[in-house]
Amino acid sequence: MASGPIPAAAPSSPAAEKELAELYAKFGAAHMIPLWTQLGELMPDEPAPRARPHVWRWSELYPLAQRAGDLVPVGRGGERRAIALANPGLDGMPFVTPTLWAAIQYLGPHEVAPEHRHTQNAFRFVLEGEGVWTVVNNDPVAMRRGDFLLTPGWNFHGHQNATSEPMAWLDGLDIPFVYGNDLSFFEYGPDGLSDTSTPERSRAERLWAHPGLQPVALLGSRPSSPLAAYRWEHTDRALVEQLALEAEGHQATVEPGHAAVRFSNPTTGGDVLPTIRADFHRLLPGAATTPQREVGSSVWQVFTGRGTAVINGVEHPVEHGDVFVVPSWASYEIRAEVGLDLFRFTDAPIFEALHQYRQLTLRGGTS
Amino acid sequence: MASGPIPAAAPSSPAAEKELAELYAKFGAAHMIPLWTQLGELMPDEPAPRARPHVWRWSELYPLAQRAGDLVPVGRGGERRAIALANPGLDGMPFVTPTLWAAIQYLGPHEVAPEHRHTQNAFRFVLEGEGVWTVVNNDPVAMRRGDFLLTPGWNFHGHQNATSEPMAWLDGLDIPFVYGNDLSFFEYGPDGLSDTSTPERSRAERLWAHPGLQPVALLGSRPSSPLAAYRWEHTDRALVEQLALEAEGHQATVEPGHAAVRFSNPTTGGDVLPTIRADFHRLLPGAATTPQREVGSSVWQVFTGRGTAVINGVEHPVEHGDVFVVPSWASYEIRAEVGLDLFRFTDAPIFEALHQYRQLTLRGGTS
Amino acid sequence: MASGPIPAAAPSSPAAEKELAELYAKFGAAHMIPLWTQLGELMPDEPAPRARPHVWRWSELYPLAQRAGDLVPVGRGGERRAIALANPGLDGMPFVTPTLWAAIQYLGPHEVAPEHRHTQNAFRFVLEGEGVWTVVNNDPVAMRRGDFLLTPGWNFHGHQNATSEPMAWLDGLDIPFVYGNDLSFFEYGPDGLSDTSTPERSRAERLWAHPGLQPVALLGSRPSSPLAAYRWEHTDRALVEQLALEAEGHQATVEPGHAAVRFSNPTTGGDVLPTIRADFHRLLPGAATTPQREVGSSVWQVFTGRGTAVINGVEHPVEHGDVFVVPSWASYEIRAEVGLDLFRFTDAPIFEALHQYRQLTLRGGTS
Amino acid sequence: MASGPIPAAAPSSPAAEKELAELYAKFGAAHMIPLWTQLGELMPDEPAPRARPHVWRWSELYPLAQRAGDLVPVGRGGERRAIALANPGLDGMPFVTPTLWAAIQYLGPHEVAPEHRHTQNAFRFVLEGEGVWTVVNNDPVAMRRGDFLLTPGWNFHGHQNATSEPMAWLDGLDIPFVYGNDLSFFEYGPDGLSDTSTPERSRAERLWAHPGLQPVALLGSRPSSPLAAYRWEHTDRALVEQLALEAEGHQATVEPGHAAVRFSNPTTGGDVLPTIRADFHRLLPGAATTPQREVGSSVWQVFTGRGTAVINGVEHPVEHGDVFVVPSWASYEIRAEVGLDLFRFTDAPIFEALHQYRQLTLRGGTS
Repeated sequence: MASGPIPAAAPSSPAAEKELAELYAKFGAAHMIPLWTQLGELMPDEPAPRARPHVWRWSELYPLAQRAGDLVPVGRGGERRAIALANPGLDGMPFVTPTLWAAIQYLGPHEVAPEHRHTQNAFRFVLEGEGVWTVVNNDPVAMRRGDFLLTPGWNFHGHQNATSEPMAWLDGLDIPFVYGNDLSFFEYGPDGLSDTSTPERSRAERLWAHPGLQPVALLGSRPSSPLAAYRWEHTDRALVEQLALEAEGHQATVEPGHAAVRFSNPTTGGDVLPTIRADFHRLLPGAATTPQREVGSSVWQVFTGRGTAVINGVEHPVEHGDVFVVPSWASYEIRAEVGLDLFRFTDAPIFEALHQYRQLTLRGGTS
Repeated sequence: MASGPIPAAAPSSPAAEKELAELYAKFGAAHMIPLWTQLGELMPDEPAPRARPHVWRWSELYPLAQRAGDLVPVGRGGERRAIALANPGLDGMPFVTPTLWAAIQYLGPHEVAPEHRHTQNAFRFVLEGEGVWTVVNNDPVAMRRGDFLLTPGWNFHGHQNATSEPMAWLDGLDIPFVYGNDLSFFEYGPDGLSDTSTPERSRAERLWAHPGLQPVALLGSRPSSPLAAYRWEHTDRALVEQLALEAEGHQATVEPGHAAVRFSNPTTGGDVLPTIRADFHRLLPGAATTPQREVGSSVWQVFTGRGTAVINGVEHPVEHGDVFVVPSWASYEIRAEVGLDLFRFTDAPIFEALHQYRQLTLRGGTS
Repeated sequence: MASGPIPAAAPSSPAAEKELAELYAKFGAAHMIPLWTQLGELMPDEPAPRARPHVWRWSELYPLAQRAGDLVPVGRGGERRAIALANPGLDGMPFVTPTLWAAIQYLGPHEVAPEHRHTQNAFRFVLEGEGVWTVVNNDPVAMRRGDFLLTPGWNFHGHQNATSEPMAWLDGLDIPFVYGNDLSFFEYGPDGLSDTSTPERSRAERLWAHPGLQPVALLGSRPSSPLAAYRWEHTDRALVEQLALEAEGHQATVEPGHAAVRFSNPTTGGDVLPTIRADFHRLLPGAATTPQREVGSSVWQVFTGRGTAVINGVEHPVEHGDVFVVPSWASYEIRAEVGLDLFRFTDAPIFEALHQYRQLTLRGGTS
Repeated sequence: MASGPIPAAAPSSPAAEKELAELYAKFGAAHMIPLWTQLGELMPDEPAPRARPHVWRWSELYPLAQRAGDLVPVGRGGERRAIALANPGLDGMPFVTPTLWAAIQYLGPHEVAPEHRHTQNAFRFVLEGEGVWTVVNNDPVAMRRGDFLLTPGWNFHGHQNATSEPMAWLDGLDIPFVYGNDLSFFEYGPDGLSDTSTPERSRAERLWAHPGLQPVALLGSRPSSPLAAYRWEHTDRALVEQLALEAEGHQATVEPGHAAVRFSNPTTGGDVLPTIRADFHRLLPGAATTPQREVGSSVWQVFTGRGTAVINGVEHPVEHGDVFVVPSWASYEIRAEVGLDLFRFTDAPIFEALHQYRQLTLRGGTS
């Protein structure tokens, strides 16, 4: 539409122009806005996101989080020492995309982030370190390198660092979606934690982390996964197996040299959260993803390795800890220089549920 | 949250203040924003919508649309002579709520609005008049007083006024939702209409408007209703029957003196569009709806009668053609002075699909 | 399998034969049966139904029902003057197919069939006549020529003939399925009827028979349709429209000259009953259905006209009121001599739900 | 119904009796059967299954299977050395219940059962032993003590014993359901096996046996589980954890001392097969299940331990390997003398899908 023909509404004389101006003024006074002056902006030929592709460097993120650890206490009121990645295209809002929130959260030695709950859905992904327990619904869940951890909406949760080392991780939430649609409910819990024990495995895992098995006492489909932690050892093993199967000649990988697992809700087989999809990708050295476009936005974090994210034709070198964002309908492709492991989350479940999802594979390379 | 305790992050000395300011500056340069300064705004205790309750008067809407009919031609480029209702709280955007678009569209004698299609879902509701045919997927659909008409996403559609009288109606779309989430695809169709005939009943109705019957040739569930028109005669009869059944002592109405029908998708039993719910309400003289709050936003238009919309405790007298909006979680109640017929549409299907819908009945009256 | 190679288990000597006989005797004593002697019978290459194609003539059915009306009173204990069509292949059981029950039910002038309920799902189809009201859940539903009427499982129901003329109709139920799987619950209601009024339209129709409209007070998906009656006037009109649309060049019919409607559950868009599908077919003079095979069984009744049912290559002339059965995977084709209207019901919902449904179109004609 | 009042149809005089006899004879000739003489049998007040509670002793089953191993070769034609458990109430059919098949299958040293496929869904449960690989869709799956293994409908499969020891296991299928409803398709595969390798883990497990993780290359819901093997080590660990959590004071078990896991389809969260549910139960010494009734039938096999199955009030002592059957709506309760591990499968998915499932807890003990 942006490149459509000239609007038919162009006035033909000074008198007409004046009359039109008067009309538009009356529109304004009546809280009315004509479509015909806004159409190209409102209804583009294809998605024209204000959010921009962007890369945040771990080498910058972590020291700033650390500095916040020095200067800013964590506690009731501020609740969390989390610093959001703010997409440069989104008017200074702390939103990585129009729907998604990504933040680095930092917890110093023996610090505690108090309990609260909210309708926003949340997860944590641990790039490095260990020693924090997130307590979700009174269930302490250890956080360790490579783990993916869930806090579905309206579950009380707090965190404690049980060690003398600080720890930082990536938080992902649907805060922008909930904010933009006025869906937020928030409630404080106790200032301390409901359970300060530090078990190896959470109760959620003891109940749910058995492949294909469900506890009969807790059957029934749930909007969000009851499995609080997806451990790195399982993710890694699944990826290793896919690549081994590919090498043996079987269908297992997304494309040559590209293994991927979806974190899923064992009670439905669907996404872990109603609004957020998460998966983990492994590219062999020299492998690349097929260029594509997707409706909705996604956020990637490099777990290990080094490569290039090509977004809308621009090459961004990326390495350990770097976070990059792919706006709606941007073309993207990821190339591994050395072996490359990446965590990704997206808002695809929202648009699939509403029959708005589209994907386009660009066979001939990035356009 | 807005009323939460003082953030723990308050600096304790001029030196600390300076260090913190430096940190915040570095955050800004790195496109990072701390959560702790924004929490109350981002994650309120309960929805704190920027959209405001507002009433647009038909006595103002219609003359301005008529004036636009005099001054602004309709045709390729501008596409539609539609004037959006802009919620005063939404920063000058042409959005009636964060997700919904409502506009008055006006077509003069023998005017034609050219064909196009887009991923935005649309409907029309006809307050008064007749003589326009909307051509959806080559199928001409007569528009008459009280009718509710569908244009699901990605169907080509245009309109023609086949008479010598102008006609205006209410358009409802999910433009803001699609815009905010970067989901828009748009394509021009032919400048003229693909079918200029003016049949009494559309082909869609001839296939689908038989109660409980589906054409075997076209079976299968669809995201949107294949029934292009819901005729006033059916809506009215259904409401008459509900009130008669209530009078005979049977369960049929929502509450005493309050009949209501949901426009539904016969292939699923669900909502007519993936993102929009629509229903029609009839209140007997003196009847009132139970005060309530709902997550998500809704837009009402008075079809006939006179009454009062009480939103967040403020009484708004409303009558024929007036449009009012209920933001997320606002308390609302509608009281009929004389018999009151109202059309309503909401974004509830979005939030039900994502398990974010909540409703609260306020038994003791509006708070 | 029936035509498979000789079982490997054939004994090779008299001694071996004796030992085998001893083993088989021990199996018998232990309630054990070897698979290898039964495989071809138990697991045929394709369905080998014991149920046979068969035609019951209305000219025979009706007089016998009438005679039963003379000799056999209706009342508590026997409950219904219904005579089942017993498939000749099904060992003298009163089952028209392994899953379905079809019966002619006859009610003399002013007779009453008392109320009861059962988990078996039921419908009535009215070939001719009128004057009976079936009272379903206290709601009197008039039965008239061409109507399709529902009594979903566990709804109390009774019938009364309010006239001085007898009336007969076709009953369809899932009695064999419920019997074979031990699912039957049955409960007596009052001996008289809970409501003896004789309204033109049932309350169910007043609530639900408005195209695409649902009562807001009664929303929510249900296993069975809440619409108690599908009236002939709607069925006929839908078929007329499909054939008119076909003549105008639009897709509307199943195939040339073959219109068909599915009776559907407005709360789900699916079948009217969890275990029974019902539809109505109209063939123009000279038209024929494409030969096909389907898993599961179906029962047809000619409503009006004359034609030929070709089942497994055998031609059966059929006319007004004749009932014929198509067993699982039998090839079938229906040819209209004059215009032919047919009612059909099948057990397809069972096998679709269990992912066992298959259909095969036989393009080159019946094999 | 069986205990209902005397049918109203009782004739009142010898003449009437004669007329009635003549009518019934005509019914017979016309393949018609009156309902009123059959009602109590056809539509009982509550399920009156012909299938009987019965216990098959492992001490009897295994020696007979072994003897069949001596006398009956396995190969093309007979296909499998499987001996079905024939419910004494089911007229000499090889059916353990009206819907379910249970058999002991025996494969001698180095024997091979050739490949075939059928629409019947199958599983294996391994009471003891190891050394057989079942090859499902070319994927060799090791069978070991305690494992639960799937062969969903229409997958080619064969078995080989790769050792010098015989092995026997329990087969479960929906053969009776498929037979009774004429749904069987059967096709021979190669006489040999498509893959004779003997890997520790199947490809299916390497792809799918990672808790909560799905291969992105193979996403999408499927009617049956893609996980070919549910290993004993996982089942056992899940049960151990449930009992440990119970001891720690958390909700994890079905009831005190009764842990249970459901084998589930990771792509849907539902049952492993469209027609068969399977789960595994562990009772602590002295624990008992709450007496209950369920619609549909179930088959249990004691894995380890010793206890009592109380079915319809009759106590059956059971131990290692014993198989017992609970017919529809029979009351049942299981009591553990020593710790008791049991495998169970049922047809509940059929009746849940069709809204026919009912369950009744008998709080006061077995009636």
